[in-house]
Amino acid sequence: MRLLLYISSFIAITLVSFTGMQQKQRIVFFGDSITQAGVAPNGYITVLGNLIAQKGLKDQYDLVGAGISGNKVTDLYLRLEDDVLAKDPNTVVIWIGVNDVWHKKGGTGTDAPKFEQFYNAIIKKLQAKNIKVVMCTPAAIGEKTDFSNELDGDLNKYANIVRSIATKNNCPLVDLRKAFLAYNLANNAQNQDRGILTSDGVHLNDKGNMLVADEMMKTLVK
Amino acid sequence: MRLLLYISSFIAITLVSFTGMQQKQRIVFFGDSITQAGVAPNGYITVLGNLIAQKGLKDQYDLVGAGISGNKVTDLYLRLEDDVLAKDPNTVVIWIGVNDVWHKKGGTGTDAPKFEQFYNAIIKKLQAKNIKVVMCTPAAIGEKTDFSNELDGDLNKYANIVRSIATKNNCPLVDLRKAFLAYNLANNAQNQDRGILTSDGVHLNDKGNMLVADEMMKTLVK
Amino acid sequence: MRLLLYISSFIAITLVSFTGMQQKQRIVFFGDSITQAGVAPNGYITVLGNLIAQKGLKDQYDLVGAGISGNKVTDLYLRLEDDVLAKDPNTVVIWIGVNDVWHKKGGTGTDAPKFEQFYNAIIKKLQAKNIKVVMCTPAAIGEKTDFSNELDGDLNKYANIVRSIATKNNCPLVDLRKAFLAYNLANNAQNQDRGILTSDGVHLNDKGNMLVADEMMKTLVK
Amino acid sequence: MRLLLYISSFIAITLVSFTGMQQKQRIVFFGDSITQAGVAPNGYITVLGNLIAQKGLKDQYDLVGAGISGNKVTDLYLRLEDDVLAKDPNTVVIWIGVNDVWHKKGGTGTDAPKFEQFYNAIIKKLQAKNIKVVMCTPAAIGEKTDFSNELDGDLNKYANIVRSIATKNNCPLVDLRKAFLAYNLANNAQNQDRGILTSDGVHLNDKGNMLVADEMMKTLVK
Repeated sequence: MRLLLYISSFIAITLVSFTGMQQKQRIVFFGDSITQAGVAPNGYITVLGNLIAQKGLKDQYDLVGAGISGNKVTDLYLRLEDDVLAKDPNTVVIWIGVNDVWHKKGGTGTDAPKFEQFYNAIIKKLQAKNIKVVMCTPAAIGEKTDFSNELDGDLNKYANIVRSIATKNNCPLVDLRKAFLAYNLANNAQNQDRGILTSDGVHLNDKGNMLVADEMMKTLVK
Repeated sequence: MRLLLYISSFIAITLVSFTGMQQKQRIVFFGDSITQAGVAPNGYITVLGNLIAQKGLKDQYDLVGAGISGNKVTDLYLRLEDDVLAKDPNTVVIWIGVNDVWHKKGGTGTDAPKFEQFYNAIIKKLQAKNIKVVMCTPAAIGEKTDFSNELDGDLNKYANIVRSIATKNNCPLVDLRKAFLAYNLANNAQNQDRGILTSDGVHLNDKGNMLVADEMMKTLVK
Repeated sequence: MRLLLYISSFIAITLVSFTGMQQKQRIVFFGDSITQAGVAPNGYITVLGNLIAQKGLKDQYDLVGAGISGNKVTDLYLRLEDDVLAKDPNTVVIWIGVNDVWHKKGGTGTDAPKFEQFYNAIIKKLQAKNIKVVMCTPAAIGEKTDFSNELDGDLNKYANIVRSIATKNNCPLVDLRKAFLAYNLANNAQNQDRGILTSDGVHLNDKGNMLVADEMMKTLVK
Repeated sequence: MRLLLYISSFIAITLVSFTGMQQKQRIVFFGDSITQAGVAPNGYITVLGNLIAQKGLKDQYDLVGAGISGNKVTDLYLRLEDDVLAKDPNTVVIWIGVNDVWHKKGGTGTDAPKFEQFYNAIIKKLQAKNIKVVMCTPAAIGEKTDFSNELDGDLNKYANIVRSIATKNNCPLVDLRKAFLAYNLANNAQNQDRGILTSDGVHLNDKGNMLVADEMMKTLVK
């Protein structure tokens, strides 16, 4: 009798805490310097948290930043276990690709087949643990709207690869490159290469952080 | 008396040949491998010659190819005297830029300020001799129409530089990049990277040679 | 009775084969195209196997090739589990670095800090399973002896990194770069860039395979 | 009579000034940022001027700096007429090559055949005007003595090209790369990459300026 009692009370407690875990979704944002800055006071992760709070859903989401400056897709694969799996997330938002293209200029970018191969390996490991994967296209290296930013061609190519990987793996896609271009077409009449959504063509200014938070809200919170 | 007679007959002959020179315009096509192939049987210079002949203007134009494979704007400057000025042209058509962008991938392209500096130096030397300069934008490195050819961004940037130099120097412009894109938007529904106007994304196939000849005809022969 | 008999005979067989497993060392050679070619009839792994057989030690070693063309250190990390750990090796010989340097020319090499970071991550995972790690310096990209092969500086730098990692992790080192230079100083009086130990400056010819097998023999078989 | 008198006095004056011109040798130093800094108070051209003055030869030499930051061999060719020929020199000291190699990292270096082609074109134009050409090997991009500076291989290759061009054109050579290495082998026991003859691996510190002035003195002043 005693033994049974103990068991039943243990189950009860477990159920409660298990219910609690289900209610609070842990979302890890996995990326590069843009995501590293996302947890700053005006960063997109902070802004997203505020948007969630405004909807009265603060208790349901736990947002965790996991961005490191200079990261490429290979770096994400390297630190997947320590920086993501160890945090036991429900959802992982992957936003990578700018450095894979950009660093080619200095000789150490990622070629397209390897970009796809490492990206797929990350998704496979996450999905094997029933973690939901949300993917983002790399947004911009330069904000000119006539595709005359030096790396536009390659960045469009890698954005296409991300879209294709998302489709093949049934991952929701936050198409930030598309959203950035649309915003710039409406708000960057002088074809400037920075200063609209970014401070330097790549890293987000306040408007950029708001746009990203808005776009992610649509996909992450329903 | 005899001396005077000789002199007058010399003048007469000179006048005749001088008139002949004025009637026959010599046009030198100055560029890279695309122009080097332009004098082949189906090459754009040959096709242009045929178009001129069809108009009955064969006697008025002398078309001279001066393209060398792998050339960048610095190479044109290096061989300007031997390969162009020595031929005493009325008009020089400059079509350069693909290798200045492309060769960056192997470490030996031309940076944008130097591209402009050497281009201007060439124009200055030609215009100092009252030679008419016609400029062409680099057409394509890949024929995809969504600007996802790897080098589209940089090629758009250098095409913009060429347009700007043409405007500043009052040079007629044959905007081949614009013409190629328009043609591909109409004829490359599957977004292929080659096979529409080029054999390999860069070098002209028969349709490409015809399009280039047509575009040049509009500017060169009036 | 019967059941017991079966069990005991099963145990006996298992013990024998377990002893056999302990005696037969499995060595996995983990690398790039040079190692991929190592299992060919004249390849260095095959030659090493012959040297071992000549010593009458054939039953004690099981040599397994795990080289893939174009691999860099990031690729080794990506396929560590499937291609190495799954084979349950006693020893892993890592020979990597040529492509990490070479591919910089095309924009997709590995920068030095990342090279070290991924290399260390591989060693950590192997040593955590008590697998012995043997490291090799990248041998050559060009065989000239006056250090005027285009990539000599960077390859020397990465060879130094490999030596440093080996020291820090107590890994035996097969210093192939040192051995190649010594051999070339003695046998390449005309300062040729290929044809002494390699066919193309990188990939081994018969003499190169023999030298590598000899050098590895010294470290692997005692 | 009057006319004859005028003529004879004109000849006399001319002879005097012509003699003066012959005595004062004009040497133009043609190069990149290292030479641009050469005319600073501690720069190598200034130091060389002081060494000449110490020998009591101040009246015999006119040293002119013509270095521009970032220059490669193509840039020297571009500005040869304005910056060198216009100064009517007796001797031109060419010191170029560091940026031709270094800028490859950013995609805009000079490939080896073009380096040789432009260099030869410069020499040809100078020698056609009976100007003496003195050549210098590029000294250093990093001062480590074990050839593990990243670009040592390529810099050795281009130094070899410079040596070969000098021999073919009978130009005196100031082998600064050789002199720098010898000095570092004697004075850089800790294998530092800067701080011995340079401030940053490339640009000269005081000791570097003195060494360069000494080496040039040997060749230029006899």
